[in-house]
Amino acid sequence: MKKILMIAVAIAVTFSAYAQQALFGGQSIVSPEINPDNTVTFRFVAPKAIRVQVTGDFLPPQKMQTSFGEYDGPGYADLKEGENGIWEYTTASPLAPELYSYSFVVDGIKNSDPNNVYQIRDVASVTNIFIVGDGRGGLYGVKDIPHGSVTRRWYDSPGLKTQRRITIYTPPGYENNNQTYPVLYLLHGSGGDEEAWIALGRASQILDNLIAEGKAKPMIVVMPNGHTQNPAAPGESSHGMFKPAMGGGGATSVASMEDTFGDILKFVESNYRVKKNKANRAIAGLSMGGMHSASISAQYPNTFDYIGVFSAPPVVATMGNNQNQDAANEFMKKLETQKKNGYKLYWIACGNTDFLFNSVVESKKKMDEIGFNYVYRESPGGHIWENWRIYLSEFAPMLFK
Amino acid sequence: MKKILMIAVAIAVTFSAYAQQALFGGQSIVSPEINPDNTVTFRFVAPKAIRVQVTGDFLPPQKMQTSFGEYDGPGYADLKEGENGIWEYTTASPLAPELYSYSFVVDGIKNSDPNNVYQIRDVASVTNIFIVGDGRGGLYGVKDIPHGSVTRRWYDSPGLKTQRRITIYTPPGYENNNQTYPVLYLLHGSGGDEEAWIALGRASQILDNLIAEGKAKPMIVVMPNGHTQNPAAPGESSHGMFKPAMGGGGATSVASMEDTFGDILKFVESNYRVKKNKANRAIAGLSMGGMHSASISAQYPNTFDYIGVFSAPPVVATMGNNQNQDAANEFMKKLETQKKNGYKLYWIACGNTDFLFNSVVESKKKMDEIGFNYVYRESPGGHIWENWRIYLSEFAPMLFK
Repeated sequence: MKKILMIAVAIAVTFSAYAQQALFGGQSIVSPEINPDNTVTFRFVAPKAIRVQVTGDFLPPQKMQTSFGEYDGPGYADLKEGENGIWEYTTASPLAPELYSYSFVVDGIKNSDPNNVYQIRDVASVTNIFIVGDGRGGLYGVKDIPHGSVTRRWYDSPGLKTQRRITIYTPPGYENNNQTYPVLYLLHGSGGDEEAWIALGRASQILDNLIAEGKAKPMIVVMPNGHTQNPAAPGESSHGMFKPAMGGGGATSVASMEDTFGDILKFVESNYRVKKNKANRAIAGLSMGGMHSASISAQYPNTFDYIGVFSAPPVVATMGNNQNQDAANEFMKKLETQKKNGYKLYWIACGNTDFLFNSVVESKKKMDEIGFNYVYRESPGGHIWENWRIYLSEFAPMLFK
Repeated sequence: MKKILMIAVAIAVTFSAYAQQALFGGQSIVSPEINPDNTVTFRFVAPKAIRVQVTGDFLPPQKMQTSFGEYDGPGYADLKEGENGIWEYTTASPLAPELYSYSFVVDGIKNSDPNNVYQIRDVASVTNIFIVGDGRGGLYGVKDIPHGSVTRRWYDSPGLKTQRRITIYTPPGYENNNQTYPVLYLLHGSGGDEEAWIALGRASQILDNLIAEGKAKPMIVVMPNGHTQNPAAPGESSHGMFKPAMGGGGATSVASMEDTFGDILKFVESNYRVKKNKANRAIAGLSMGGMHSASISAQYPNTFDYIGVFSAPPVVATMGNNQNQDAANEFMKKLETQKKNGYKLYWIACGNTDFLFNSVVESKKKMDEIGFNYVYRESPGGHIWENWRIYLSEFAPMLFK
């Protein structure tokens, strides 16, 4: 039977090769190629193009002007045309282990790499990705180790009067034992949804790898959708295939993430074998999800022993030029209660070029004034997924110990 | 708190808009736009381009020559340049309800639609998609109905000496009752993997919709990876982000899908609440997966009451110019046993322009010779996902009745 199927496959291959050649110009080159020394070569076939560039986060950033002042924009590099219209560029030096994203720019028009099917969507932009050396600490690659399960399912939110989609990571072995587990609630930013931490954050790979190495305790990771006007990620609900936008798009929400977080807690604790106490609950998030983590952990006192605020000011009212003293005071009262109730870890992480960096500094001052303990982790870089993957890699090992 | 987060979002939106504008030229147009009359408008910004085309399966096919003879290749249409370098094309007539895929071709170079984040990968090609009218019978869209869960998890295959990734659909309510369910094993083709039926086949939407309408019984759908040399889909195993290929790529397999299917049966029946008898087991697949379904249902006699062979000859040895009379005779003996053991439905479906159409005709003749009962469904069109979605939509309602 095996032999027969191989014949079938051979026929199908021939057939398909023709079909694809017609559609896509028969490009069969390798791109990107990660060379043995960790330099990376990009190739693009464009016999008639005048200029082909690659832009991505592996290139030195170029300065650009924004209303927030000078900002590090993406870098560009020129590919050089060789034989048969194949353009090529190899990085000047080896790349550090990391997940990188890039696109080509062909005569001024952005294009994806037709030889690389690996892409990620960040808000409304789709870019190609590649990973050098399995990423930071080797944590982003898939290895021959036990793997957790990742489930997309729907929970009932009475507070939002709808079913909502949620992504759940259960650790290796969960289905075949009777243990109870601690839970990390992991929240996305303004541009994300319940797919963001899995796709951009490599959360399942990071957890699988940390757990296999004995560096993190086996835990359930719950990734809800933080835009309460949306039942699910773009394309995954009856809202249809809408164009993703920061803030989740224009639909109207009937209640806030904070006020309806109890629906998620209830769903998880009645549907999974979890340890239902403060010592076994953590909440963390990036940007808007970091603000959510701060506000939810304050609004549900005595619920979380571990709080992670990534690239966001815990005291949201101190942000930028939109300071709201009444709101800040009200929140500080909640923090006083949270302090009194106690917690094991309040972890604030921020990049030193993040556009929210100063707001984080302001928040820390406010917290210092009332003696609110936190651990502060400052990293290089800005408001980017590279940092959020690192923060998750560092935060998860500190939990439930 | 809600108000404060809105301020945060507003700041983040401003910031992000700048970053994206720099990267991608600030395109904020709508494409594709599905107009009220179901014509569709495509737009692409390219001020310096000389020619912009759209190619996709919604356009009349164009004849192309292949080694299999004349073949229907994809159609092309020209966009017309308007103000501000925005090119535009509107279909001449309304499109029928269906899921369509397309790409742009800018001065001869294929490009994706930067205004449409919805893409599917078929083997190594990534194209944009859109759905008109929720697809055939309204079955492909996500509606406000109860939804099943979709889990990616790993099972142990002693026969393949490895853990392997598998996709499992459990119907709405599965997690919150004690019922047992019938199981459909749903297999992909030579270009696919355990992601294919979910991404290209809209299997979870089709099942959700059929079950909600009372047209299909609630069932578990098991979608394994049929390339036994691969533990998982491209990018999802320790094989890394390899370039997908027909046949699953070049790695070596230690055993066939047929010989190791027992590992999957055992995993499913010991990990899910399933009815463990012939009357509650179905197996179906497309192309290579159709051949797998025929050969597995013959090799495991008295195991499946429902067999679906989509766009493939059940008697594989009758295929094309590679006929193998000994193998055909051997398989016919197995069919004799399968006939004697009995089954409720053997469903063969094929498109009348499929390159395997003649092989299906030959298979049917062989089966007629021994009085092997089957139901034959002939559709227009070829070896395409449009047909496989339709076949699943028609096959699932006939199961477990």
